[in-house]
Amino acid sequence: QGTRDHPPAQAALRERLLSAVVSCFKRHGAAAIDTPVLELRETLMGKYGEDTKLIYELQDQGGELLALRYDLTVPFARYLAMNKVTNMKRYHIAKVYRRDNPATTRGRYREFYQCDFDIAGQFDPMIPDAECLKIVHEILSDLQLGDFVIKVNDRRILNGVFAVCGVPESKFIPACSTVDKLDKVPWEEVRSEMVGEKGLSPEAADRIGEYVQLHGGLDLIERLLQDPKLSQNKLAKEGLGDMKLLFEYLTLFGITGKISFDLSLARGLDYYTGVIFEAVLLQQEKEHGEEPASVGSVAGGGRYDGLVGMFDPKGRKVPCVGVSIGIERIFSILEQRLEASGEKLRTTETQVLVATPQKHLLAARLKLISELWDAGIKAEMLYKKDPKLLKQLQYCEDRGIPLAAIVGEQELADRVVKLRDVATREEVRM
Amino acid sequence: QGTRDHPPAQAALRERLLSAVVSCFKRHGAAAIDTPVLELRETLMGKYGEDTKLIYELQDQGGELLALRYDLTVPFARYLAMNKVTNMKRYHIAKVYRRDNPATTRGRYREFYQCDFDIAGQFDPMIPDAECLKIVHEILSDLQLGDFVIKVNDRRILNGVFAVCGVPESKFIPACSTVDKLDKVPWEEVRSEMVGEKGLSPEAADRIGEYVQLHGGLDLIERLLQDPKLSQNKLAKEGLGDMKLLFEYLTLFGITGKISFDLSLARGLDYYTGVIFEAVLLQQEKEHGEEPASVGSVAGGGRYDGLVGMFDPKGRKVPCVGVSIGIERIFSILEQRLEASGEKLRTTETQVLVATPQKHLLAARLKLISELWDAGIKAEMLYKKDPKLLKQLQYCEDRGIPLAAIVGEQELADRVVKLRDVATREEVRM
Repeated sequence: QGTRDHPPAQAALRERLLSAVVSCFKRHGAAAIDTPVLELRETLMGKYGEDTKLIYELQDQGGELLALRYDLTVPFARYLAMNKVTNMKRYHIAKVYRRDNPATTRGRYREFYQCDFDIAGQFDPMIPDAECLKIVHEILSDLQLGDFVIKVNDRRILNGVFAVCGVPESKFIPACSTVDKLDKVPWEEVRSEMVGEKGLSPEAADRIGEYVQLHGGLDLIERLLQDPKLSQNKLAKEGLGDMKLLFEYLTLFGITGKISFDLSLARGLDYYTGVIFEAVLLQQEKEHGEEPASVGSVAGGGRYDGLVGMFDPKGRKVPCVGVSIGIERIFSILEQRLEASGEKLRTTETQVLVATPQKHLLAARLKLISELWDAGIKAEMLYKKDPKLLKQLQYCEDRGIPLAAIVGEQELADRVVKLRDVATREEVRM
Repeated sequence: QGTRDHPPAQAALRERLLSAVVSCFKRHGAAAIDTPVLELRETLMGKYGEDTKLIYELQDQGGELLALRYDLTVPFARYLAMNKVTNMKRYHIAKVYRRDNPATTRGRYREFYQCDFDIAGQFDPMIPDAECLKIVHEILSDLQLGDFVIKVNDRRILNGVFAVCGVPESKFIPACSTVDKLDKVPWEEVRSEMVGEKGLSPEAADRIGEYVQLHGGLDLIERLLQDPKLSQNKLAKEGLGDMKLLFEYLTLFGITGKISFDLSLARGLDYYTGVIFEAVLLQQEKEHGEEPASVGSVAGGGRYDGLVGMFDPKGRKVPCVGVSIGIERIFSILEQRLEASGEKLRTTETQVLVATPQKHLLAARLKLISELWDAGIKAEMLYKKDPKLLKQLQYCEDRGIPLAAIVGEQELADRVVKLRDVATREEVRM
């Protein structure tokens, strides 16, 4: 349940999609790493807040207690700490596992790919953070997924808002996870959850409401920097200052048109400490009466400066910022689009079929195909001793093989091969 | 235990190795598929004989009982049966899991990659089987691993030998797994295991010994086809007839020089029904006083005509033959060789570093690098506001980045960029 096989057509589409993502990561100078699917159970515990219950655990069959990785960020932090790496730009594309309720039409599975790019190291503020947003912008533009917006916020700003609105620090995280629902439900509902379930005072909730419903650009940042209450809060001031710097860099990258500073963005995970962001597609495809894919967020990430320190015996911190591309949701969209277009993706790359027009020529086919393989040419033949020529040409048409190399008795006698263009039926002897 | 992280240098080497293997699989017209790492426990049970105990099981957290896949062959057979596919040429490169005793210096891990190529379908005899051997030959030649031999045998011939030597059918499989040890221990030991542990009569063991120590080529096949006892056995006769046909095809492929018909080859897995084969490297590298990698088998496979039927409710069979490349062992060899050569593999593909020679030029760097990225050029910059030029050029040398694009005050005024070849220090303004 919640897993799936990828038959050749899907595997080919996925290969195409992943190669676009990998190109972008390599364009930004990232190296690849790989870590095991299995992690020690203790490595994963206490990193995902409420979602820890979604971790797949392995049966105790003796030896270490193991679990399947839940994301690629915690293993990356574990990797950095274990190898004492303090400076690294890496990408990692691999499967992760969550015992979640699958919603396969929305591209939500229990086994799915994550595509992560992260920059670890102590650097001048907001330069790596800006690059992460540039990467999201490049990938979403490159894949032509339609209009999108990248929402940006900062955990320090959110915490500052909570503080100046009179929320006690112990309730920052619950308040945060409630705010995060503002993209799905109206403010009234969020407010009543804050007051009812999370135990905030109605006054605090109302004050929060005035802030978290704001979104804008540089103008909003400037306004909040002048806000009489927020400007008194150290965390908020730091966050807003960095947000201003970020917008400066994004302006130089020429991508502020797609960026929205959105105070309702909170992100679910506990480990974020600074900038957070999330990319959302703005309009769904509605072609040929297809059901539109309800996709929502297609990329997200942020800064997590404390995670690596949790794995270091001396608690040494390595600041990190990273982005995860929601490849499964994008895959669903591309798949539906491909289906709607009626285009058939080739699942193999075969250039030529080696064929014979008469019987008793298997030896000639085997000799020729062997020469082609040795020359690096992608070639197939039918696994029959005496296939009909029509069947062989039909195979080319079914599989999109552009050429047939035909050896008959005449060709053997003349020591030539007849090369046939399957689409045009043109033939040359060579 | 028995798993490992792949840091960038290893990940880059692995990418190079896998791409050579994938090229070969694509050259032979295979399509990619992907299946989940998780399989239903019942799918895996009863498929691996004694090794079933090595399967990793997931904890029962409610829902289906799951296990981690042990190989890619059983999931492939499950896939074919479930989707009623009766004809397919596919490759699959993915991780598999075995609770084995790890021997990491020999490249044996608990989590490791398998690279499988299989041909499923009802075809004329030995044509797909010959192609599998051609693939092994191509990959091992391509990777320049040194001299190798591909041992070939057939389960029907082995079973025929057991039958004519007086072994009861119930003891074919235990006898088979004992014979399989002949490449590691002398015949005397194998014989005593047969008689002692497996309960064969001394006479039967001696008769078996006369056959299973034989190896050769077409001449041996011809001799056994004339063997007074074997030629009376239906199974053996079929196997020997097909072996002759196989050698005919391999002669046309021009690869019999590396093929040895070896009656001691048995292969561990239960599911083989016909041709079996295994490639072994003949000489180990001994350079610069390095310990030679003790590698043994680097590829193996065979025909398994009954496996798909085990997953079909009506037991419909789909004949299959396939090959698995022992990528981990090959990886160990290449890694040791790379280490010995002192060659440093680049882990990134960055073409140019965007650099500045003076302070206060971060904006110029950000603008230029953004243009480069948008033009598809692989570019990096240091994440510092005012890095020293020397540090920037040093970064290029450390990472093997061939070019630096330098924008200083003069270049900005002249609206040019200074492009510097890091190795030769040549500069052009453009």
